[in-house]
Amino acid sequence: MRIMIDICYDGSDFEGFATQPHGRTVADTLMVALAKIYKQPIYIYGSSRTDSKVSAKTQYIVFDQPFSIEPDNLVKAINGTVDKRISCKSAVNVADGYMPRYDVGYKTYTYTITSEYIPFLRHLEYYVKHDLDVKAMQEAAKYLVGTHDFSSFCSANTDVKDKVRTVMSLDVNKVGNKTLITISGDGFLYNMVRIISGTLLVIGLGKYEPSYMKTILEAQSRKLSFATAPAHGLMLEKIVLKGTNE
Amino acid sequence: MRIMIDICYDGSDFEGFATQPHGRTVADTLMVALAKIYKQPIYIYGSSRTDSKVSAKTQYIVFDQPFSIEPDNLVKAINGTVDKRISCKSAVNVADGYMPRYDVGYKTYTYTITSEYIPFLRHLEYYVKHDLDVKAMQEAAKYLVGTHDFSSFCSANTDVKDKVRTVMSLDVNKVGNKTLITISGDGFLYNMVRIISGTLLVIGLGKYEPSYMKTILEAQSRKLSFATAPAHGLMLEKIVLKGTNE
Repeated sequence: MRIMIDICYDGSDFEGFATQPHGRTVADTLMVALAKIYKQPIYIYGSSRTDSKVSAKTQYIVFDQPFSIEPDNLVKAINGTVDKRISCKSAVNVADGYMPRYDVGYKTYTYTITSEYIPFLRHLEYYVKHDLDVKAMQEAAKYLVGTHDFSSFCSANTDVKDKVRTVMSLDVNKVGNKTLITISGDGFLYNMVRIISGTLLVIGLGKYEPSYMKTILEAQSRKLSFATAPAHGLMLEKIVLKGTNE
Repeated sequence: MRIMIDICYDGSDFEGFATQPHGRTVADTLMVALAKIYKQPIYIYGSSRTDSKVSAKTQYIVFDQPFSIEPDNLVKAINGTVDKRISCKSAVNVADGYMPRYDVGYKTYTYTITSEYIPFLRHLEYYVKHDLDVKAMQEAAKYLVGTHDFSSFCSANTDVKDKVRTVMSLDVNKVGNKTLITISGDGFLYNMVRIISGTLLVIGLGKYEPSYMKTILEAQSRKLSFATAPAHGLMLEKIVLKGTNE
C-alpha cells in the first residue's frame, strides 16, 4: 500500500521541506491535505530536504495508504485539496518499505543570479547588480568536480562526519542577464550548494583568482570559503532515482 | 523639472496601477517612496492603467520634481526606497507638461495559459489543464487584426463611447506547455485583452469554430464573447512611445 508521489513547490513562503513543530513547512502542509483525503493522519517520507525559501521542481515522497486510491485519482485528489504553493505531478505504487531517500542516484540543483532585478521573479533569483566574470567562475568550478572532501563547503551547523561527496558536474552559464550555476551530485552537505554558489560569486566579482577555489577546497575548512548565497536563488531541479531511466 | 521613469512591477499583490483611496496600488506605493525621497508629496501620471493582479515589464511615469535629482541617482534612490514589488529601470528628463499617456504609439500585452501548473509561477500564468487547439486560436485571432469596433470585447463597466481600436497584431504561440497570446495595438478598451484571451481560449478548447470570432466581432455586443480571462495571466509587455526608436 506504499505509494510514491512527485511534487513541485514554491518554497518562498515555507520554512523548508522537513516537518517542524510550527507546521509551516512543505511536508506539514502536504500532510494536512493527505489527512483530509484519507480522513486520518498520514506520515510521509521525502527524498531530499530543502531549506527555508528553496523551491523544487521535483521531490519524491512516499507514504503508506490506509486504503488504496488509484494513482491518477490520488494526483487529482491532492491537487484539489493541497495549498496552491504545492502541486502533485504524478503518483505510482511502489514496493512496501521503499524509501526514495536511500535510492537517489543523483540530484541536480540550479542557483540563479540575475543582474536585472525582476520584481515578479524575485522569489527565484538572487539579484547582484555587478557584471560577473563567467569564464573565471567556470574555471573555478572545475576544481570542485569529482570526489572530494567538501568540508570547506559545509555549514558548521552539522553533525555529519563524512564530508566526502562526488560532484558529477558543475556548470556556470550566462543566459541573458542571468548567471546559472548548475550542480549535479550523489549527495550534498548542509548548505553545500549555496556555499559553492556564494564562493563562485566572489570569484565572478573578480575579488579572487579562479585557482583560489583549489586552495579553499584543499583547506577543508569553512573559514576559507565565502558567504552562503541566499536561499531564494536555489532550485531543486531534478532527482534521479537509481535504476530510473531519465 | 519634469522627469520620466520606467518601472516594472509584480502586480499580483496590488489592486491595480491607478491610485485608490485604500492605497494598495502601484501608483500609491510608488508615491510613498517618492514622498520619502523628496520629503514632500509627489503626484505621478502613468502611461497605462493595469488591473488588479496584472504585472508589467514596463510602465512610463512622469512627475514634476520639486528639486532636481540627476536621473541615474534617482533610479538608485527609488530602488533603495520603494517596496520590492516595484523596480525602477531608468529615468530621463522630459519637457514640461509631457504626458506619456498621450504619446503612446502602441502597447503590447502577453497573456499566458499553461497546461502544467507550476506553483512558483502561479501569479504569472493561467492554468488550464486541457490541450488547446493553437491552430484554431491562430485562425480565430486573424479576424481581430485591423481597425474594428471592439464593443464585443469591452467590459460593460465603462463610459467610453468610441469603441473603435486598431489591433496591429494578435499572435498565438505554443512554447512547451504554455500557450502565449501576444497582442499589440494603439489602445485597448476596459478588459479588452482579457476578454479576447478568454474568447480565444474557448475556441482553443474546440467549443466553437474559429469563424465564430467573426460573428462575435460583428455583433458588437459583449453578450456574444466569452468569460474574461483571469487577471494574473496578463502581462503589460511593452509600451512604445511615439517618435521613440525601439
